[in-house]
Amino acid sequence: MTMAAGRMPRVVIVGAGFGGLTAARRIARLPVQVTLLDRKNHHTFQPLLYQVATAGLSPGEIAAPIRAILRGRSNIEVLLEEVIDFDLEHKKIRTNAQSLDYDFLVVASGATHAYFGHQEWQSLAPGLKTIEDALEIRRRVLLAFELAERQAAAGLDNESDNSRPHDNPRHENQPPAACRQSPLQFVVVGGGPTGVELAGTLAEIAHHALNHEFRNFDPRQSRILLIEGGPRVLPSYSEELSRKAEQQLRRLGVEVLTSHMVTNIEPGAVWMGDKTIPSAVVLWAAGVAASPLGQKLGVPLDRAGRVLVNPDLSIPRHAQVFVIGDLAALPDENGKLLPGVAQVAIQQGAWVSEIIARDLQNQPRRNFHYHDKGSLATIGRAAAVAQFGKFEMSGYFAWLAWLFIHILFLIGFRNRLLVMIQWAWSYLTYERGARLITGSDALPGWPEFQTKTKTETQPPSQQPAA
Amino acid sequence: MTMAAGRMPRVVIVGAGFGGLTAARRIARLPVQVTLLDRKNHHTFQPLLYQVATAGLSPGEIAAPIRAILRGRSNIEVLLEEVIDFDLEHKKIRTNAQSLDYDFLVVASGATHAYFGHQEWQSLAPGLKTIEDALEIRRRVLLAFELAERQAAAGLDNESDNSRPHDNPRHENQPPAACRQSPLQFVVVGGGPTGVELAGTLAEIAHHALNHEFRNFDPRQSRILLIEGGPRVLPSYSEELSRKAEQQLRRLGVEVLTSHMVTNIEPGAVWMGDKTIPSAVVLWAAGVAASPLGQKLGVPLDRAGRVLVNPDLSIPRHAQVFVIGDLAALPDENGKLLPGVAQVAIQQGAWVSEIIARDLQNQPRRNFHYHDKGSLATIGRAAAVAQFGKFEMSGYFAWLAWLFIHILFLIGFRNRLLVMIQWAWSYLTYERGARLITGSDALPGWPEFQTKTKTETQPPSQQPAA
Repeated sequence: MTMAAGRMPRVVIVGAGFGGLTAARRIARLPVQVTLLDRKNHHTFQPLLYQVATAGLSPGEIAAPIRAILRGRSNIEVLLEEVIDFDLEHKKIRTNAQSLDYDFLVVASGATHAYFGHQEWQSLAPGLKTIEDALEIRRRVLLAFELAERQAAAGLDNESDNSRPHDNPRHENQPPAACRQSPLQFVVVGGGPTGVELAGTLAEIAHHALNHEFRNFDPRQSRILLIEGGPRVLPSYSEELSRKAEQQLRRLGVEVLTSHMVTNIEPGAVWMGDKTIPSAVVLWAAGVAASPLGQKLGVPLDRAGRVLVNPDLSIPRHAQVFVIGDLAALPDENGKLLPGVAQVAIQQGAWVSEIIARDLQNQPRRNFHYHDKGSLATIGRAAAVAQFGKFEMSGYFAWLAWLFIHILFLIGFRNRLLVMIQWAWSYLTYERGARLITGSDALPGWPEFQTKTKTETQPPSQQPAA
Repeated sequence: MTMAAGRMPRVVIVGAGFGGLTAARRIARLPVQVTLLDRKNHHTFQPLLYQVATAGLSPGEIAAPIRAILRGRSNIEVLLEEVIDFDLEHKKIRTNAQSLDYDFLVVASGATHAYFGHQEWQSLAPGLKTIEDALEIRRRVLLAFELAERQAAAGLDNESDNSRPHDNPRHENQPPAACRQSPLQFVVVGGGPTGVELAGTLAEIAHHALNHEFRNFDPRQSRILLIEGGPRVLPSYSEELSRKAEQQLRRLGVEVLTSHMVTNIEPGAVWMGDKTIPSAVVLWAAGVAASPLGQKLGVPLDRAGRVLVNPDLSIPRHAQVFVIGDLAALPDENGKLLPGVAQVAIQQGAWVSEIIARDLQNQPRRNFHYHDKGSLATIGRAAAVAQFGKFEMSGYFAWLAWLFIHILFLIGFRNRLLVMIQWAWSYLTYERGARLITGSDALPGWPEFQTKTKTETQPPSQQPAA
């Protein structure tokens, strides 16, 4: 491929997740101009997002401004813009602010939650993809405990003015009236890695972190239910590791319901067929759908909305357009689709820079091959499973490996240090450092707060994507 | 005072700021039951709030859950409730959730912003009192830089497709077209401690922290204006220290306009008489008004809405009701009102526990006396002023003293360590760790984002108070 003299080729990258950020860093080493577009000003380290949702870490500790990460590369420009449409024939992108030309285009806009046709569940059972999602989940979880305390206190006041169990904070003797109320129930839908880590950490919060903090009800009576449609949790791991993960979940106090399908969600309750579970908070970890930007490319998609890419990650009929990460559908040697994990996105981002380098030197392209370095899933305090090829591991050492790898790959030395301190602190004390209920609607009644979310004030078209 | 046998007196405290929290801790040592009410689940360490607003610290580092702070005191119950009204005749409080009886009542609901009859300025020029305020200010400041970059990039694209100053990130040679656009202007209204620290830190961000991050405009060209109606900044300090503070502000790159009154604020502009200043972001630090809960007590208030308390901090006609902190108006020995600072609130909170202890033992009450331990105001990087009686200090050592005292009084060992690391890191690198633009309306056009705030979606009655 040749370019007009005197002008550097322009590469536009959509999305600054693991794939887009890796692509930007690698491609910027070539003699090109890079423009990186994202709807957010920050890269989110998604593997630790559940820690923000469960009040262990602050947003600033797992996210960093994209332009700060790429500060040193003078041929990368970062723009806070949202891509609206593509005009692949004329090599143009339309954003909410302008129209941009490109010579190469890399679409890495990721995935969003899928509610399997039940979009109305979104406000009742938030998923976990962005910092905003994590803060909304944190708000709901913490608020559930606050409202339980408030309800118990008000109920006691109505019963008798002098019966408040003030001086019996541990509820060890005669349980006070308030403890007789039905326990708080948290339901996590979906037994993949996100559902497992949310359920495990919720159990830690309810059964340990809030000890001695409530006077009118006992948070340790809370129930955490994990509902999985398939026969086992962590289905992408071996059966042996699934079994161990379930054991560890139960040890942490999670009730695991496998082979149970959620058929309906309403305020305060989850339905499975004709069975219903009252639930103060429902979290959704049951499915992802590709970013709707895939549909704007005008090429074939799979059922989950992913783009069927060529073996070199380009798309049919447009050799200069690449799709990587969660938005791409590419089978491995055995015909099985590559999973939507950070490793795949990172390797694909790096591969696109290889392809562009070869194009610039008029060398033939080569196909992408994924090198599986293994997978790790954390479950909770000192509990995890790990699979490295044929080698499997679970429990405390898998958790240490998980911790080590995730802190190592966290962006920025400062963040790594802060996260390590938070982790050491909460491991020793069970305390969680970021238990703030923020937002202007921090004080709703009950159960209105379950139906009021940002999704109601925002058109759905703005939800997912870059 | 005598109580019915077999029943512990109940003390209700409204507000968990410095005054309410101190009162709760001290009063809980007496043979009483304490109920602490707050609209938020967290205590905010207000002296460091400007660091959240300017992306230096995360909310979780300067705020802690109230019930976690008071976990060890089994006779304190914490409720996340908002006080609606008082019935002092029947010793009852009505909250958004229930009606509560009290034997003693301590109202410590603090202060909020005052716009001097121009409530419409609130959405155009947010003030800084809560974590939510700080996040809103952070969002506006960071977004202003992002939008300047976007506008410059789009402008360049329209001019010529090949003129983007990509490879000239420092703008050192020929300034590219984009640099010719008018500079970003930030206006801070009010030259008290909050205005001074906001302006100083904004200058640090614009002139240092964002270096090498933008490609299409130069953030170092930004102007930061501090507008003060009176003749000098930090009017509560000596004239000498005011002069030094102004010098330090100018050295940091802040333009100080004293004896200038803001007469109007509109989207994108601040008016002073017939003079107008274009402004991307306007911040309000010009006035506070007492919490509107003061009006519900049915006792005389001063012009700022503060309750005129008796010398023992109780209110007229209701010896069992106390008002402390920013909501109380009490003159010192010289007839000058005590300032609305943390030290006053803390000492008053402790004093109320003295009074209640004396009441319980049927001893006579004594009057409150404030012990001024000195004042410190930070201005920015290595710049501060300090006044301890007749001893005055400014510059680097005053800043170190400020830093030391504020980290020392920050709640929780973990938070102190985290804040120290953040501070050391940003002192060495000029980096600011929490530069996240979050919220569902993170991607507005320009200048709509200046008019959209939470105040529009929330009834004004919910704004201030406990």
